[in-house]
Amino acid sequence: MPDNHLAPLALSVTTGPITGSQKRYSAPETFPDLQVPFREIALDPSAGEDPVRVYDTSGPYTDVSVAIDLAAGLPKRRDGWFAKRGFAPAVPRDVKPEDNGFAEGRFLVAPCPAEHVVRDGEAASFVTQLEFARAGIITEEMRYVAHRENLGRSQPLHDAALRRADGEDFGASIPDFITPEFVRAEIAAGRAIIPANINHPELEPVIIGRNFLVKVNANIGNSAVTSSVADEVEKLVWATRWGADTVMDLSTGRNIHNIRGWIIRNAAVPIGTVPLYQALEKVDGEPERLSWAVFRDTLIEQAEQGVDYFTIHAGVRLHHVPLTAKRVTGIVSRGGSIMARWCLAHHRESFLYEHFAEICDIMRRYDVSFSLGDGLRPGSIADANDAAQFAELETLGELTKIAWAKGCQVMIEGPGHVPMHKIKVNVEKQLRECGEAPFYTLGPLTTDIGAGYDHITSAIGAAMIGWFGTAMLCYVTPKEHLGLPNRDDVKTGVITYRIAAHAADLAKGHPAAQIRDHAVSRARFQFRWQDQFNLSLDPDTARAFHDETLPKEAHKTAHFCSMCGPKFCSMRISQDLQAEAERLAGLDQKSEEFRDRGGSLYLTESQSV
Amino acid sequence: MPDNHLAPLALSVTTGPITGSQKRYSAPETFPDLQVPFREIALDPSAGEDPVRVYDTSGPYTDVSVAIDLAAGLPKRRDGWFAKRGFAPAVPRDVKPEDNGFAEGRFLVAPCPAEHVVRDGEAASFVTQLEFARAGIITEEMRYVAHRENLGRSQPLHDAALRRADGEDFGASIPDFITPEFVRAEIAAGRAIIPANINHPELEPVIIGRNFLVKVNANIGNSAVTSSVADEVEKLVWATRWGADTVMDLSTGRNIHNIRGWIIRNAAVPIGTVPLYQALEKVDGEPERLSWAVFRDTLIEQAEQGVDYFTIHAGVRLHHVPLTAKRVTGIVSRGGSIMARWCLAHHRESFLYEHFAEICDIMRRYDVSFSLGDGLRPGSIADANDAAQFAELETLGELTKIAWAKGCQVMIEGPGHVPMHKIKVNVEKQLRECGEAPFYTLGPLTTDIGAGYDHITSAIGAAMIGWFGTAMLCYVTPKEHLGLPNRDDVKTGVITYRIAAHAADLAKGHPAAQIRDHAVSRARFQFRWQDQFNLSLDPDTARAFHDETLPKEAHKTAHFCSMCGPKFCSMRISQDLQAEAERLAGLDQKSEEFRDRGGSLYLTESQSV
Repeated sequence: MPDNHLAPLALSVTTGPITGSQKRYSAPETFPDLQVPFREIALDPSAGEDPVRVYDTSGPYTDVSVAIDLAAGLPKRRDGWFAKRGFAPAVPRDVKPEDNGFAEGRFLVAPCPAEHVVRDGEAASFVTQLEFARAGIITEEMRYVAHRENLGRSQPLHDAALRRADGEDFGASIPDFITPEFVRAEIAAGRAIIPANINHPELEPVIIGRNFLVKVNANIGNSAVTSSVADEVEKLVWATRWGADTVMDLSTGRNIHNIRGWIIRNAAVPIGTVPLYQALEKVDGEPERLSWAVFRDTLIEQAEQGVDYFTIHAGVRLHHVPLTAKRVTGIVSRGGSIMARWCLAHHRESFLYEHFAEICDIMRRYDVSFSLGDGLRPGSIADANDAAQFAELETLGELTKIAWAKGCQVMIEGPGHVPMHKIKVNVEKQLRECGEAPFYTLGPLTTDIGAGYDHITSAIGAAMIGWFGTAMLCYVTPKEHLGLPNRDDVKTGVITYRIAAHAADLAKGHPAAQIRDHAVSRARFQFRWQDQFNLSLDPDTARAFHDETLPKEAHKTAHFCSMCGPKFCSMRISQDLQAEAERLAGLDQKSEEFRDRGGSLYLTESQSV
Repeated sequence: MPDNHLAPLALSVTTGPITGSQKRYSAPETFPDLQVPFREIALDPSAGEDPVRVYDTSGPYTDVSVAIDLAAGLPKRRDGWFAKRGFAPAVPRDVKPEDNGFAEGRFLVAPCPAEHVVRDGEAASFVTQLEFARAGIITEEMRYVAHRENLGRSQPLHDAALRRADGEDFGASIPDFITPEFVRAEIAAGRAIIPANINHPELEPVIIGRNFLVKVNANIGNSAVTSSVADEVEKLVWATRWGADTVMDLSTGRNIHNIRGWIIRNAAVPIGTVPLYQALEKVDGEPERLSWAVFRDTLIEQAEQGVDYFTIHAGVRLHHVPLTAKRVTGIVSRGGSIMARWCLAHHRESFLYEHFAEICDIMRRYDVSFSLGDGLRPGSIADANDAAQFAELETLGELTKIAWAKGCQVMIEGPGHVPMHKIKVNVEKQLRECGEAPFYTLGPLTTDIGAGYDHITSAIGAAMIGWFGTAMLCYVTPKEHLGLPNRDDVKTGVITYRIAAHAADLAKGHPAAQIRDHAVSRARFQFRWQDQFNLSLDPDTARAFHDETLPKEAHKTAHFCSMCGPKFCSMRISQDLQAEAERLAGLDQKSEEFRDRGGSLYLTESQSV
């Protein structure tokens, strides 16, 4: 075994463009330095189709011009943005043995050697995006996300009018074109957040709010039972390659501090954590021994490293715990169960709740966003929307207002396991209780009987809850309830949730969401197989499935596939039909005539059947 | 290559019980001969849990006491039911060379040698279940499905009152307990069908209607490019093993007649076909050469073999075709495109529409149910809910009334590709136009960009449309748009659609639907891993996923899995918490007290934060 895990790590990270596409950068006209990444899918030039530009979360890893060096970390693109913000370089907290679970010698993962100057915003007038927004200041982060949400367009789509008529947004207010001022106003209102720790300069900012594209989070992280730092950094790169907008590092066990260092220094997406997990490791996994001092120290440790959002389970209060006593599945949130145990053991109020204002003060200094945890989310259909869940949600509403008053950005976590007919009320109640702070849900799973397929049981709920107004969907992998997801599971989970998020965007009537669907459909109808593959969320799998039965290159332009074969291909017949009709130059005209004559043109005597 | 394909066929069919369960039969008290199959999942006896009985579509293949002989076919359980119905033995139509696409010698699949006496109901007073129902007669089929829908219960569940308050059925009328009389009344009203050809005595009857459990269809069938008879019979057995309620044989190419014979004689589920496919084969794949004579002959050929429902694309009328001219994906239904081509080529009304009354007369003679095809369903998000689709649906409404007047059972096929916000209106319009005839939809897919994952893009739409009132969901496999599904794809498609159907049953508030979810959840919370696996839709995959990281038998009772590891298992902590709380014997009481005192019991000074 090597002294540290650097060698396998450096070997295993996935780089290079996604099949059929290239990394491109684009900037608003007036801010040419603000290079926003996109992915451009080139289509068959003979078909007269423009390339399709899609949102890109993959970071520099898919840019062939960037040499990836995990030990050096990613380029620090935000460093220049901070020049005028008055952040002081801080004397960083010393790394303590317990930060890595007392791992030593060959068991200690080496720290990421990338340069990292720790900043502290305590003395600055404005630190958080919320503070800037309220002051009427548009930050670079806000301009960046505006351009990103517009997919690089410099003006609204011409068919915006058509778009507005098509979609049901349940009270969201999605504009045809995202201006930086709109971004600022949404953040100022608390309806959107840009999780962007001032100690994470490598970040490509992303906005989370119901008036923006629906986002997807992927959870990674080792557990005490399995996985390694090499696996986790590759999972980060892999998850973002396939479309994760944010990644949560839920590592437990030893080496948490150093693994997180490798992850953040190499992450272009916001990184979220649950600081309680590491705090619990520091007290040997005994919830009773947790204290505000240990927790506070962990917050500072992680904030200095650059974590962009913290899940804080401050909504689990002592008096909520009895409400879970008759549940079928009790408390299924790790953080929730830890805090419930602490509360009962000490028979006192949660220290997270009691010290919430101080937590806000710490998170404000670094602009770490809150993800207020739903520690009492239901773990089964039986427990959905029960008194415990909704009591906690009301508490999260209280806490949101406190965090906002302290200048902190906030989103709210949601369930869980919820049957379809109980999903909508979750969004309605969350918007009401929490003043429209962005909702961030785990699924929800719409049935409990699909173990091994819970990416699917939950994608159903995720698509619906995204449509209703959830801003970010936390993925669920096929391994949910069964084990720690591996690399393949991560990909399946991310692609599944990109489907759910995109289905939600379409249903909400998000401008431009249909562009990619229409491009796929035209490619499909015109038998441009390569274009169909490349426009799909997972070009490699689409191609592999096709090639299982028709592997030859000639089949990539064939006017059929193995599903129906050549004679029964409806697309071929229908395409021939359209061509024939155009030759006769009569179809459209006849259609018009038919309507003009009240539908009688083509009717024959047979209509009397 | 062998002279025929019998040998590999006999070898490859899957038999034996599904892991952790046994085949059981149950009968209504007053009809002990009516043995209705169920699957009983045994749970850990030490947990004090009764076995869970679930609906079973797998036929005799999972019954260890039945010796499967594909050449002999399945037991003909309905033969005895026909004794008093006055059906005449018919002189069967001769099999013609074109029925098998002129396959000869070693290319000809041998016919299934199972005994098959062809019946013709033309002279009988009542043939179809609709005719019996209208006459006030409760058939064996009706009693059978009532017992089946009740999962063998002899009385309503005790918690039925609770159930009624929980669920949104959008105007369906799902009773707490299904009586044979309720089944009869639903069939008489046209709101439900039992597809049950009098020439398919091997059938285990199943009811399709919005006031019953949501059903799932799996498509199988070879194409000219790939697959064989052995593969197709195994796909039938495999699809029903995992939960397909009906199976459509969509074979094209040669040997269609003989492959179908093997399938029907070995099918315990209703078999559907699209007779137009075989008719097209008989005219060398040239739609222009189709004629009423060829089609009529094919209907009789397939009805005599025992096909239970026919997709008939009689709704595609000449004057609808121009409405598709400006579509992004034209006509994507094979049957729809064939008929559109025929109409345009001859510039005359569809022969299916013109001869619809005669089609009814033929189908009534054998009680073949109509599945009125949606030949103009949208093939892309862009084309959803357009004029062509809805014009055809209105025509299907007309045809439904004609078929009902002729005594035929009818269901209506639906889309296709539909974004979430346009799904509900499809159900509403279908119910209105077609007098509440059961709706049978393909997905719908909620986005076009998920090639390779279209079981998921469509499961989202399927769960929703099932909730809104669709009676049967046609599965979509991961190979959709890319190639012919193989055995693995069939299983993935079926399991995915069982999830969608069950999620819909839960949301509709179907009595007893929650029983299985609750049992899984209890098993999960109590770390009964084997029970959790066995209660899941796919026990083998659930177990395999778990065992990837924790393979030892001891881990099957461990109070954690590799996802969180022992220290972070919320279920363990929460379970410990409940145990502790019970010891203190105060939790429930405190919870009550808390509510009595207006929520102030546990509040401390910290509430002023």
